[in-house]
Amino acid sequence: MKVLKHNFNLPFNIIRCSHVEYGVRDLEVSRKFYVETLGLIETERTDEALYLRCLEEQQHHSYILKVTEEPCVLAVGFKVAFEKDLDALKEHLDQKNIRSEWVDKYAEDRTLKVTTPQGFILEFYARMKKVAHKLREYQSYQGMHPQRFDHFNVFTPNAQETYEFFVNELGFRLTEYTTTEKGEMWAAWMHRKGNVHDMALTNGDGPRLHHSAIWVPTALNIIHLLDVMATSGFVENIERGPGRHGVSNAFFLYVLDPDGHRIEIYTCDYLTVDPDLEPLGWDLKDPQRQTLWGAPAPKSWFEHGTSFVNTPVKEAKMEARPIIAN
Amino acid sequence: MKVLKHNFNLPFNIIRCSHVEYGVRDLEVSRKFYVETLGLIETERTDEALYLRCLEEQQHHSYILKVTEEPCVLAVGFKVAFEKDLDALKEHLDQKNIRSEWVDKYAEDRTLKVTTPQGFILEFYARMKKVAHKLREYQSYQGMHPQRFDHFNVFTPNAQETYEFFVNELGFRLTEYTTTEKGEMWAAWMHRKGNVHDMALTNGDGPRLHHSAIWVPTALNIIHLLDVMATSGFVENIERGPGRHGVSNAFFLYVLDPDGHRIEIYTCDYLTVDPDLEPLGWDLKDPQRQTLWGAPAPKSWFEHGTSFVNTPVKEAKMEARPIIAN
Amino acid sequence: MKVLKHNFNLPFNIIRCSHVEYGVRDLEVSRKFYVETLGLIETERTDEALYLRCLEEQQHHSYILKVTEEPCVLAVGFKVAFEKDLDALKEHLDQKNIRSEWVDKYAEDRTLKVTTPQGFILEFYARMKKVAHKLREYQSYQGMHPQRFDHFNVFTPNAQETYEFFVNELGFRLTEYTTTEKGEMWAAWMHRKGNVHDMALTNGDGPRLHHSAIWVPTALNIIHLLDVMATSGFVENIERGPGRHGVSNAFFLYVLDPDGHRIEIYTCDYLTVDPDLEPLGWDLKDPQRQTLWGAPAPKSWFEHGTSFVNTPVKEAKMEARPIIAN
Amino acid sequence: MKVLKHNFNLPFNIIRCSHVEYGVRDLEVSRKFYVETLGLIETERTDEALYLRCLEEQQHHSYILKVTEEPCVLAVGFKVAFEKDLDALKEHLDQKNIRSEWVDKYAEDRTLKVTTPQGFILEFYARMKKVAHKLREYQSYQGMHPQRFDHFNVFTPNAQETYEFFVNELGFRLTEYTTTEKGEMWAAWMHRKGNVHDMALTNGDGPRLHHSAIWVPTALNIIHLLDVMATSGFVENIERGPGRHGVSNAFFLYVLDPDGHRIEIYTCDYLTVDPDLEPLGWDLKDPQRQTLWGAPAPKSWFEHGTSFVNTPVKEAKMEARPIIAN
Repeated sequence: MKVLKHNFNLPFNIIRCSHVEYGVRDLEVSRKFYVETLGLIETERTDEALYLRCLEEQQHHSYILKVTEEPCVLAVGFKVAFEKDLDALKEHLDQKNIRSEWVDKYAEDRTLKVTTPQGFILEFYARMKKVAHKLREYQSYQGMHPQRFDHFNVFTPNAQETYEFFVNELGFRLTEYTTTEKGEMWAAWMHRKGNVHDMALTNGDGPRLHHSAIWVPTALNIIHLLDVMATSGFVENIERGPGRHGVSNAFFLYVLDPDGHRIEIYTCDYLTVDPDLEPLGWDLKDPQRQTLWGAPAPKSWFEHGTSFVNTPVKEAKMEARPIIAN
Repeated sequence: MKVLKHNFNLPFNIIRCSHVEYGVRDLEVSRKFYVETLGLIETERTDEALYLRCLEEQQHHSYILKVTEEPCVLAVGFKVAFEKDLDALKEHLDQKNIRSEWVDKYAEDRTLKVTTPQGFILEFYARMKKVAHKLREYQSYQGMHPQRFDHFNVFTPNAQETYEFFVNELGFRLTEYTTTEKGEMWAAWMHRKGNVHDMALTNGDGPRLHHSAIWVPTALNIIHLLDVMATSGFVENIERGPGRHGVSNAFFLYVLDPDGHRIEIYTCDYLTVDPDLEPLGWDLKDPQRQTLWGAPAPKSWFEHGTSFVNTPVKEAKMEARPIIAN
Repeated sequence: MKVLKHNFNLPFNIIRCSHVEYGVRDLEVSRKFYVETLGLIETERTDEALYLRCLEEQQHHSYILKVTEEPCVLAVGFKVAFEKDLDALKEHLDQKNIRSEWVDKYAEDRTLKVTTPQGFILEFYARMKKVAHKLREYQSYQGMHPQRFDHFNVFTPNAQETYEFFVNELGFRLTEYTTTEKGEMWAAWMHRKGNVHDMALTNGDGPRLHHSAIWVPTALNIIHLLDVMATSGFVENIERGPGRHGVSNAFFLYVLDPDGHRIEIYTCDYLTVDPDLEPLGWDLKDPQRQTLWGAPAPKSWFEHGTSFVNTPVKEAKMEARPIIAN
Repeated sequence: MKVLKHNFNLPFNIIRCSHVEYGVRDLEVSRKFYVETLGLIETERTDEALYLRCLEEQQHHSYILKVTEEPCVLAVGFKVAFEKDLDALKEHLDQKNIRSEWVDKYAEDRTLKVTTPQGFILEFYARMKKVAHKLREYQSYQGMHPQRFDHFNVFTPNAQETYEFFVNELGFRLTEYTTTEKGEMWAAWMHRKGNVHDMALTNGDGPRLHHSAIWVPTALNIIHLLDVMATSGFVENIERGPGRHGVSNAFFLYVLDPDGHRIEIYTCDYLTVDPDLEPLGWDLKDPQRQTLWGAPAPKSWFEHGTSFVNTPVKEAKMEARPIIAN
């Protein structure tokens, strides 16, 4: 496995991951989960979609839940610094023959939709409609006190290639990674905004989304969410945790929404703004990489993910499998 | 100052302090404070009264808010073990010529109302109507997650006499106390239920109630309440704290309800069930007794209290005054 | 299953569970675990034994670790109110032909050693040597901030009989219990000190000790202990948790000491001093009884326990087995 | 008051504030405070200096404590992205006739020392000697679990000019600010690393350092530090807090080291990486700007600061004074 040098020379500036657009089957069922249970703020609701955000967010939404026949991921969204970055990104991708197109998105000025060579659907924008944040409206704090959108994690059958794409073509920087015995890239955590990741990838059938993640202030917010879910009809939606990841040092919980989209509730990582930060490598056979405290993840956590809309899923080539429960 | 021996020989068994009955001017205003802001559970509401309880409580109420012309304390309530304890208590008080009478209280089987020689109005009962507790209904957790009623604290112009009454005639046990330079009792913390106190008294104009207290799980619940109060129109109702008392080791916050009744939000004391527990004495001049961290309490905290209904207040005789903030 | 009435008429008063005496193989290895990792206070060390206590405890010890050839439980200890309670207890047991004898214990005035009909070795005392507590010496707070000894939990092949013994002959009061489909008692939680339990019993091969438990202030103390254990050579000693029990509402963690003695780290239960508290019954098939959040306990947690010294273990008769992880 | 546009066009990239160099009178006394009480990690100690860092930091130090006759600030340090940024910064400052010089600093490759027109001594470097971080060595966590250096706050007699310097010449971005009735800039919070601030300035006699700040994970770490300081000889060193700032939403505590250098213990701010983040303005007369919960700061907090070495202090011109405690 080759750890690439950061690419500081791209002509555009991706600020951070920003939002996800999920296809769901029933908005009312979704609202009960995201708003009443997790505590997200409902910014707007139309017949076809629910737009939600976290407490500190001034952007119109970080979750779009859109009615579709089957659950799917419609897009994962990223913010760039300025409108000119969108143009520079488009030009860069055109030069590389990577598919991109301008699309109309509600609440965004201009949106560049990119389909990566691996099949991931990314959307980039510079300006989204602004709304008031709720950071200092403490009576709005409900559920787990969701403070901000944190990151994505995807399954890909070609971890090395996907990693190289995000680093070389989009300027993401590696913070931590896992390699197989043979030295192959098995998982990679990459950031733009200065924490452990905006985007992570893991070996597996893909392209699929493994999870989106929301940052909360403390572990006690996560424990309260567990108590609430366990006693309000969502105990089956608790998939894994709480626990501490060795990777990223995060205190985590994984839950599944009513359509099977996985959400990580996440806190406790660290600052990564230094350009000379050394990426931290983990051995696939080290169980503390997954769970510092030793408890294995359930099988579903390694296998279940959500497909991108109209995107065929390819089987993972690597045999490498971590130690799992069961 | 003489620390009395515990009196283990009384023919009745007071289990714990149980509830307070406050006179308030406007139930809707009170409800906004107690239910919407602090997070107490509304058990029942009539035209004249609001009955509230905390999350783990199976008793009908720990707060009765009753409409009166002026704010006052109508009674402070205690639970005894059995109905026969009420009779034994009545007989004991009759022998001592201490005023008591049977009164009818909504939701209690029999109630013995006692006026102590110092003028405090106490009500004793053995059985109150039961309701479901909310301990495992986590979606009911709001505000500061109020878990249970904890204690009373009163002003009295005769601390030594009041202390002796509670120990000798009612069987309370001293856990901590403050004495003046001359060795006079200035404040006393006394319990029945096995924590630092069910009832505390402090030198001051009285009889008056200084505060009633609610136990919450952690300091973070108190910090969240501060944030909520500060941004929902109740910033002026925050009187003192957060801080750590030297006495009792409690992490505390004092707030005033819309009628000026003081509520302590309280956590972190210790187990006191041992009959051979040595009471811990504090010097009135030791500022860490009040606030372990050194910050003085505001003047109002030493002076403001609520009178018992139809009960004249006598001036405190002792000159002793702790160091206070200007 | 028959829920017995509380027995309020016994002529003695057991205050609370107090300490455990473990046989361990190497004091230095034990010290590294209990003192350096969990954060217990070392009161005294002799050639044969280590005496430890928690932060708020004024008693000489709540853990005695004594060198033995093989790990075992030497005794579980309870405090009674006064010396006269020991005599009354002795007389009561003699009348019932239950084996008891006076033994000499370091740091206790008089000790009555009782072997219950089920084979449990209990020791009762009224007065133990006192030492300074560390509650307000915050620089002594290490590891998980162990605040006080909380309870025992034992395996017994005859749950109904053991339950009846503790209630009828010793005056324990039931707070929660689990029954099988056939209505047999499968597990019982019983208290003396006013929280959920001083002693619990579970169906299983016995008499054996399942665990002793230490109370800590918040869930964050438990999370910190997990992090410390996971990165200081004790990751294999983490057996189960963190999680929330439905029973008792406790936030818990189970760890094994270097000799396999199981310690529960415990917080978040509730006050049970009311004589009319209704015991809460659970169905053995309800998985939330075990873990509110749904995750099953590992097999070892249902099977592993520590024998009492020189005490044969009998096989459990009941078939009932909860759902467990593979 | 004029809120300036961010300056995105400077030819160098300052990554973040990095460290402070304090003159102290006795290293052993300082070590007892910073290492034994706050819990900082001692990286290295020489006869003249103590080099300390926080738990997640891979850099050699974030605090240099150097023996001087009188307490003073020797420099505040910032990290730039690459060595070439140092050269570009030097060239930029030379063009503006702002004083800068290359100096030798232990543990840094090259260091550019800049004296701003207002008299602040800043040091810039690209590469500092690296050491292992302690993020996953949880047994090293002591005191308040100091995780990383967060920011500086300075007094300046010319707030508007100082603000303009940092924005226009160094590329800092405003996140929050306070203005007087007349619309003058009274205080400004500015960042580089994507949180609320790397550097804040307040009207007052200056140039002086008001405080340096350390980020900790949760409010409970701050409460524990208060308890430790209050019971280990440092109660007088607690100056203000705990509390919540309206500005930045931080949960804070201010303590004074043995030489009077003020340290803020800080947690709970928010992400500010978006270039279109609107700065949040506060009115100087709004007390919740200072303390959301309403309690005023002590007088010393508005007046006491530490001078930069050999740098004369000028009196503040503005009359504007916030409401303070007596």
